[in-house]
Amino acid sequence: MQLPEKITLCEVGLRDGLQNEKSLLSTEQKLQLARKVIAAGCRVVELGSFVSPRAVPQMADTDALFAALAGDPGVELRALIANAKGVERAAACGCKKVKLNVSASRAHNLANLNRTPEESIAGFRDCTALAAERGIEASGSISMPFGSPWEREIPVSQVCGMIEAYLSVGVSEISLSDTSGMATPKQVYELMKTVQAQYPGVRWWLHFHNTRGAAMANILAAMEAGVTRFDASFAGLGGCPFVPGAAGNIATEDVVHLCEGMGVATGMDVRQCLAIAGEVQALVGHGTDSCLLRAGCAADLLRELPEGQKRARDCNRTEP
Amino acid sequence: MQLPEKITLCEVGLRDGLQNEKSLLSTEQKLQLARKVIAAGCRVVELGSFVSPRAVPQMADTDALFAALAGDPGVELRALIANAKGVERAAACGCKKVKLNVSASRAHNLANLNRTPEESIAGFRDCTALAAERGIEASGSISMPFGSPWEREIPVSQVCGMIEAYLSVGVSEISLSDTSGMATPKQVYELMKTVQAQYPGVRWWLHFHNTRGAAMANILAAMEAGVTRFDASFAGLGGCPFVPGAAGNIATEDVVHLCEGMGVATGMDVRQCLAIAGEVQALVGHGTDSCLLRAGCAADLLRELPEGQKRARDCNRTEP
Repeated sequence: MQLPEKITLCEVGLRDGLQNEKSLLSTEQKLQLARKVIAAGCRVVELGSFVSPRAVPQMADTDALFAALAGDPGVELRALIANAKGVERAAACGCKKVKLNVSASRAHNLANLNRTPEESIAGFRDCTALAAERGIEASGSISMPFGSPWEREIPVSQVCGMIEAYLSVGVSEISLSDTSGMATPKQVYELMKTVQAQYPGVRWWLHFHNTRGAAMANILAAMEAGVTRFDASFAGLGGCPFVPGAAGNIATEDVVHLCEGMGVATGMDVRQCLAIAGEVQALVGHGTDSCLLRAGCAADLLRELPEGQKRARDCNRTEP
Repeated sequence: MQLPEKITLCEVGLRDGLQNEKSLLSTEQKLQLARKVIAAGCRVVELGSFVSPRAVPQMADTDALFAALAGDPGVELRALIANAKGVERAAACGCKKVKLNVSASRAHNLANLNRTPEESIAGFRDCTALAAERGIEASGSISMPFGSPWEREIPVSQVCGMIEAYLSVGVSEISLSDTSGMATPKQVYELMKTVQAQYPGVRWWLHFHNTRGAAMANILAAMEAGVTRFDASFAGLGGCPFVPGAAGNIATEDVVHLCEGMGVATGMDVRQCLAIAGEVQALVGHGTDSCLLRAGCAADLLRELPEGQKRARDCNRTEP
C-alpha cells in the first residue's frame, strides 16, 4: 500500500465546525483555540468566513481573528468568501488567502443563485482580480462533486467543467468538498486519479464529512491516489447541512492518530490535538464525533501486567 | 482501485454486541432479530457462545437460539466456544459451526491461562477432534494480532506461529480480530497480503472495532488486499473491551451502505439493515455507533427542488 510520506491538514473547526453551533464562542475563545491548533503543529487554518454577519453570526468576528493572528509566516490562515466584498474585508485585516465556493449541483446552484456552477465561477473573476491586486491568494472549492441531494451523481465531465472554470479565472488551488457525505472511497480514488492527471498544475484539497461513516476510508483512498491535503475539524465538529444530527467533519485528532500509526507525517502532535478536542467539546457543550476523545490514543492503552495476574478479558469472552 | 465483486458479512451483533449489554434481551427478542438479519440477506450469523452462563449471562440462551434456528441450509450459524464442553453443547442443539479463540498477546494469554497462545491452540485439539466426530466445523480466531494493550506490536512471525498452530489442529478458517482497535489500514493490507500468500488454504475473516475511527478504512484496505469476509454488528453494537465507552464494532448497515455505493455486493438489503439497527437501538435503550442510523441512506437524500426556489445551504455558507 503506497501512501504519501507526509500530508497537510487544514483545521476547519473554527469555520465549518463553529458555524454549525448555536452557542457563540467569544473571539478570545476562538483565538485561544487557533493558537493551540497552531502550537499543535497545524500549518493551515481556516479561521472563518467574510460573509454576512446577519446570515452567519458565528463568523462575524473573522476580521478580528485575522487581525490578531495574521503575520506568522509559517502558518497559512484562510477564510471563505462569497464575493469581492469578502476580498476587501480580507485585505483590511491582513488575510492572505481566501476561498471561493460553488455547488457542484446545477439544480442547487440554479435554485439559489439562478446560474449554473460554471457561471458562478466565471462571476468570481472580479474577486480573483481584486485579490491579485491586494496580494491575496484565491482558492476555490466545489461542494458535492461526489454526489448531491439533487442529482445524486455529478458526472465527472461536469466536475471537470467547474475545475476549468476555476482555472480560467486564475484559481489553481481547488478543494473538493463532500458536504453531503455521499462519497465512496472507490469514487474518490478514481476521481482524484482522473483530475490529477488531467490538471497537473492544480493543488488539491479534499474535505470529507463523516456523515455515513466513510470519511476515513475516503481519506485513505485519496492518499492512495496521491492526494496530500485534507481538511479536518477538531473534535469532529460540524455536520451535514442536509441531514440535521448526522456526524460531522472527520475529526482532526482521529486523522492525526491514524496517520501516525501508518507512518504518514502530519506535523501535528496527537496529544495536543486530543487536548484541543476535549476543550472544544467542553466549549460547545455537547458530544461530538471524535473517536479518539472516547478511546484515547492506542499507545495509551499499553499497560503493565497487573501484579496479581488479574484476568483481563478481550471481547471474545470464552470463560468455560 | 481493485475491490472484490462480492463480500460476505457475518452478523456478530447477537454475540459480540449483546454480550456487552447490561440489559438482557429475551430469547424471543433475539430470535426475532436473527430472523430479520437472515431475511435481510445475511448468510453467516454468530448467534452466541457456549460458555459459562455465570460468566456471560447474556449468552446463556445460545442453545435455545440454535435449537430454534438451525436447519436452514442456506445460512451458516456459528457460536464461540472455549473448550470441548462447548462442542458438546453445540452438538446437542444442532449448531454446525464453532469458533475457538486465542489472544495474540503472549502476556495476556500467560496471565489469563498460564500458557502461550500457541499452547492454547495446541490444547484445542480435543475440541477439534470432538467437533469432527460430531460433524461440526471448527474455526479459530486470533484476538489482537494488529496490536495489544500489553505488547503493542505483535510480530508478524508470532501471528504466523498461531496460524500454524491452528492449522496443525485441523482449523483452516481463521478470523483476525482487532478487539483493541489498534489496527491501521496499511498494517491490515500488509499483514493480509503476507498471510494470504503464505497460507493459501485458509479462509480468512476480519473483525474490526471502530474504537479509533479506523474500522471502515481497515475494511477497505483488506478488500484491496483481496479479503472478502468481514464481521459487523447491527447498529454498531459492541465496544472495546479495554476502553469502556469507546465505539463498538463496525456497524453492519454502514458497511452494507458503503459497499453498495462501490458496487461491492454484500447480498444484504441496506434498508432492512437500517430497520434492524433502529430496532436494536430501541431494544438496548441507548445510542450506538451507527452513522447510517443518524444520516439515512445517501439515496434517501435525493429531493425534488422545492417549488418556491427555497434556498438550501450547503456547509460552505457564503451568503454575501
